[in-house]
This record gives sequence, C-alpha cells and structure tokens, in this order.
Amino acid sequence: MNSHIKPVELAKAGRLVNHGPTVLVSARHQGVDNVMAVAWCCGLDFDPPKLTVVLDKIAHTRSLIEASGAFVVQVPTFEQVGLTDNVGTLSLYEEPNKLTHAKVPLFEMPGQTMPCVEGCSAWLACKVINEPHVQEEYDLFVAEVTAAWADDRVFHGGRWHFETAEPKWRSIHHVAGGHFYAIGEAVDAKTR
Amino acid sequence: MNSHIKPVELAKAGRLVNHGPTVLVSARHQGVDNVMAVAWCCGLDFDPPKLTVVLDKIAHTRSLIEASGAFVVQVPTFEQVGLTDNVGTLSLYEEPNKLTHAKVPLFEMPGQTMPCVEGCSAWLACKVINEPHVQEEYDLFVAEVTAAWADDRVFHGGRWHFETAEPKWRSIHHVAGGHFYAIGEAVDAKTR
Repeated sequence: MNSHIKPVELAKAGRLVNHGPTVLVSARHQGVDNVMAVAWCCGLDFDPPKLTVVLDKIAHTRSLIEASGAFVVQVPTFEQVGLTDNVGTLSLYEEPNKLTHAKVPLFEMPGQTMPCVEGCSAWLACKVINEPHVQEEYDLFVAEVTAAWADDRVFHGGRWHFETAEPKWRSIHHVAGGHFYAIGEAVDAKTR
Repeated sequence: MNSHIKPVELAKAGRLVNHGPTVLVSARHQGVDNVMAVAWCCGLDFDPPKLTVVLDKIAHTRSLIEASGAFVVQVPTFEQVGLTDNVGTLSLYEEPNKLTHAKVPLFEMPGQTMPCVEGCSAWLACKVINEPHVQEEYDLFVAEVTAAWADDRVFHGGRWHFETAEPKWRSIHHVAGGHFYAIGEAVDAKTR
C-alpha cells in the first residue's frame, strides 16, 4: 500500500462522496473479486456515516455484495476515467477476465480483507444494512461506512484539496455514455 | 418564464442530476412555499426516471412534501451559491420570511402549480412514491420524475454544455460547511 494512504475519521468520511463523484464499487466473496462503476452513490447520514448505492440486478458485483454483506466505495481520479468506463461496461458474467482486461489492480487495506482499487483518491469500507424491500424493488442498497481512507496528496486535514493538488487527482462525474465532467474550481459560499 | 427554459424528454431527465450536483428542493402545500438545499439527491432509475432525496425531519420543506406528495428538484448555478447556502441554513420554522430573506424568486412552469426557483439551470417535477419505512428510518424519499425542463443556454440536445456555456452556469457540489466545488472540464472516456 502506498504511504500516502491515510485513515479518514468516520465523522468526515461523508465528505469523500458528498460532492457527487462517480465511484467504483468493489466486492469479494469466496475468492471472487469484482469492481463496477456506479454513478448513483449518495450520502445518507453522518453519524454513523451511511450511504446508498444503486446496483442493477444484472451486475455480478451485486451478487458478491448480497453474499458477503460488504463492499468498498472508492473515488476514481481523472487518470482513471478509462478504467472507470471499462469496469462500467464490461461484465464479469460475460468476461471472466474482466479485471485483467480492464487493468484494475487491487490491494487490501491493513487489517481488512476487502479488495480495493489502486490509484483511487479515497476508499470507504461499507457494511450492508439489510433492507430487502428497497433492494428488490429499486436495486437500492443502504450501507454503513465502517472505515475510510484517502490519499493525502488530494485529501488531508478533513477536506479535499482539488484546487491545489495535481489535476490528475480530480474526481470524475458521469453524465451518460462515457461522457464525464471533472470537478472544478473551489467556491466558498460565505466569502462570495 | 424566460424563453430559454425548454422541456427535457423524460428519457434524458436523469442526466440533469447524474453528475451529482447539490440541488434545491422546493414544495408547496396550502399556500405555503419553501425551498431547501439538498446535497443528497441521487438518480435511482431511467424508465420511468426516478430519484432519491434525503430530507431531514427538522426541514420544514419535508412537511410540505409529506402533505402534498410532490416536490421540484432544481439545479442551482455557480451564481446561486450564496442563495443555496442561505436556503440550506435558514429554516422556515425559525424564519417565517425565509424566502424573502434568502432572496429566492419563485415561478411556475406552464400547466404546473409547483414553486420553481428562478435562475436555475434545470428543474425536475417529482411525485413521491410512498415508502414509509425508509422515509421514517433513513429520511430517504423515493420519487418519480414526471416532467423536466432546462435552460437551453447550458443544456440542449439532451446534454449539458458546461464546457461552452458561460461559467456562471456551472453546477455546484457541496462538500461541507458552505464549501463547494464547481463542475469543471468535460472528459470523454472513449477518446482518452
């Protein structure tokens, strides 16, 4: 694990996804790993931090999450836009070597056994809160964030520093069909 | 209503919020209007388009939505970051003249009776899908988008044009405590 990856206190973990980036969701069950792209990931609560993700029934990663009850949300960078598009369009059901083809290197955080994607800017370990009705009806999963980390080259002191970090660290925000926007300029409502 | 506001076909309405902007949620019941800022708004489905919003029990707007079963999600612009912060921090419970104080001008779309905020870039009329358990447990509201509009100076041809529109049209993405990022550069995963 690279030495820039630092724990983020749970009280501030929500800030990692509050600005609405497209994320990667990874999971593991019985030795099978998978990663998918998810545009529909959203904060839900602060204390304890919770979030929601929408996982289509055709997604293989969903089956790993239903079996294991856990997943990782990670924030891909501007440099990973191709990787993000690839894991969002390939399926492990059709392409057994998906992660090799999509060039997705995985690692584990210390003391954790979940697959994390290298090169992202932030990672949130999540535990599914079982809500069978909304899972089935809307493909909506509710989860509690149990641990979080970020790369201190872009997130430190409890906040993002996209405005001073190298541009390659910017988060990406999917609109449709592989078209994204990178995050831009910082703006403080109190000083405008 | 300004002549730049054009209907958006429902099949593409999700694109208005897919990139994760902070939104304004407005509602009306028995002659009372209110508007709040919501960072936790997220796509849920394409056809028919659905979305989720998280509405705290302390929010007066929530009581209007519970009574009327309807609300409008609108996408504020870079120019509206002060307004967005104001409606996110003032409460109608404590400040009966909130909308006057926060300088929030309202209008109605043709054929609709819902309050819309002037000057935004997009508007989605939403009908609550009653899900009492997640509303109560998580403050999570599921809704179907029944109509959508956008200002054609920044959204036309079924897509955002932040990269060519005037910078004042950029969406804003809240992190915490009045700190936002504006949306930035366009990036196409297929051509990188």
